[in-house]
Amino acid sequence: MTHRFLATCRNEPTDRVPVWFMRQAGRSLPEYRALKESHSILELCRSPELAAEVTLQPVKRLDVDAAILFSDIMVPLAAAGAKLDIVPGVGPVLEEPIRSARELRQLRPLEPQRDVPFVLETVRILAAELDRPLIGFAGAPFTLACYLVEGGPSKDHARTKALMLSEPALWEALMDNLADSTLAYLSAQVQAGADAVQLFDSWAGSLAPADYSAFALPYVLKIFKGLEHLGVPRIYFGVATGELLGLLAETSAEVIGVDWRTPLDAARRRLGPSAVVQGNLDPAACLAPWEVLRVKALEVLQFGGGRGHIFNLGHGVLPATDPDRLRRLVELVHDWEPDVRAT
Amino acid sequence: MTHRFLATCRNEPTDRVPVWFMRQAGRSLPEYRALKESHSILELCRSPELAAEVTLQPVKRLDVDAAILFSDIMVPLAAAGAKLDIVPGVGPVLEEPIRSARELRQLRPLEPQRDVPFVLETVRILAAELDRPLIGFAGAPFTLACYLVEGGPSKDHARTKALMLSEPALWEALMDNLADSTLAYLSAQVQAGADAVQLFDSWAGSLAPADYSAFALPYVLKIFKGLEHLGVPRIYFGVATGELLGLLAETSAEVIGVDWRTPLDAARRRLGPSAVVQGNLDPAACLAPWEVLRVKALEVLQFGGGRGHIFNLGHGVLPATDPDRLRRLVELVHDWEPDVRAT
Repeated sequence: MTHRFLATCRNEPTDRVPVWFMRQAGRSLPEYRALKESHSILELCRSPELAAEVTLQPVKRLDVDAAILFSDIMVPLAAAGAKLDIVPGVGPVLEEPIRSARELRQLRPLEPQRDVPFVLETVRILAAELDRPLIGFAGAPFTLACYLVEGGPSKDHARTKALMLSEPALWEALMDNLADSTLAYLSAQVQAGADAVQLFDSWAGSLAPADYSAFALPYVLKIFKGLEHLGVPRIYFGVATGELLGLLAETSAEVIGVDWRTPLDAARRRLGPSAVVQGNLDPAACLAPWEVLRVKALEVLQFGGGRGHIFNLGHGVLPATDPDRLRRLVELVHDWEPDVRAT
Repeated sequence: MTHRFLATCRNEPTDRVPVWFMRQAGRSLPEYRALKESHSILELCRSPELAAEVTLQPVKRLDVDAAILFSDIMVPLAAAGAKLDIVPGVGPVLEEPIRSARELRQLRPLEPQRDVPFVLETVRILAAELDRPLIGFAGAPFTLACYLVEGGPSKDHARTKALMLSEPALWEALMDNLADSTLAYLSAQVQAGADAVQLFDSWAGSLAPADYSAFALPYVLKIFKGLEHLGVPRIYFGVATGELLGLLAETSAEVIGVDWRTPLDAARRRLGPSAVVQGNLDPAACLAPWEVLRVKALEVLQFGGGRGHIFNLGHGVLPATDPDRLRRLVELVHDWEPDVRAT
């Protein structure tokens, strides 16, 4: 039997709406925070046994329909030569931000077997242990470029956009490098056993449609086209992408992740009627009392329509989220029956 | 003769598209940075002569069609009793964030003549000196609440949304307080001589439409209804509000500011054909070479359609922006003739 998560990715009918949560592994779980006391994020990502353990924690605790590899979008960049650290409370910080051809040279093409064997080993462990699908993932070129060019998290990605608009040759070289490495990275995850992949383009929504189309979309297409022959569902996610949905439909991704700003019925109108959507409860709703959260989750289910919908949050689980709340949310989604939604 | 900025606010035809820039006064101007060496932001805001000088700097240098009062959205909150400082490089920081009824008591109803006489004096100086319209401004309740509840800038406004969803009575008390004070504050600015007002609801776009409608819009309406009898144009602006535009049309604001994510023709379709729109060049485009910037600015002008359009950026001027670039942009807008836009 195909698992309901994979069936929904292919827009096949299922018994229940599948559900998982972005950042389901990590900061909201006490068992993760306990591990974090003695290990840095990069250490956890580089230790297959530990990364597998962290990946499995939410599967056991929450009974979500898919596991997602525990890692960080910066892991392959660090493995490809970028000098970076992930600073608690800050995020990725680059020793030498990439703003010229000279700095770009630190980033060699990723060879997954050589550069990230620990990730592939984590995937193999998980594929053997899991009784449900495993989602592999990577950051998309534009979003990775934001960190590499800014040198860390930023509000407006101004340096990145300035480089993008000012130095087309350097931008193309950087984005080609990132697209090629990301394709190799995701392909290797699938070959090691991942059942689906999600490309996180978290900051794509900071681009105007014309800029997204010219400077980010071509590299997403390159990755998704390159993955096509592997036959696994490809999920594409970004924040504040409401105006880009028509363009996102061109990526050929099987599933489009939508943040909470765009109701799923509106998203589907822009994506096309056969689109599979993933989302899109505001993560902050999980901090509300159960009765408020329940009503909001039911709204998401109704907008999702009970078919071609993977329930998720509209962005990652917030650190302050009570895991019991997420567990109850999974039960709510699994109990929901689309046929009676009008009553 | 009515100035072209005010005529456009009323959707009357004008000789040229009017232009001004959010944050035109401030960090991008060397004459401002020189003043900042010996004065804090709050000092500048509280010194009428200096605040007027800073307000006039971009008018002289850039020849924009409107001046906007130099101030900060936190100024009336500090004057109403909130213990806060504006920390360079960080933003507003609250000594005691407002998360309970007890903490809300620090915020007394604003009486502009008593609490912010320096702002009103600044407006009077400017109204006497300026040969073009002066825009008064304030922060909108939701956006102010984000700072007050979080205790400073935040990425996700999670605490604010949690309070909003969990404690309706406290939320209403906080938002009513902010709406009443903001209405009094803007009314006093108009009575002192402001020709138009802009309500900055920068973070409104972080709310899903249903939440915006329930928890933020009612307080915006209260402010705009209360301003109606004063007869000055009311501008309402937020970032990432593409999905909210239908709701924003309900505010009765004469002008809706739109960020760069939503092309102005799409925005106008959602707002209604008679809407006046303000925006919406990506501020990062001002960091690009002139030829790139020029093409993007012309696109904005074409989407704006040459009528009912106030040219602006889609958010504030970035600190790294070259003022000469802005000056050239003003010339480009003033030289542009809608009648020949199809050639």
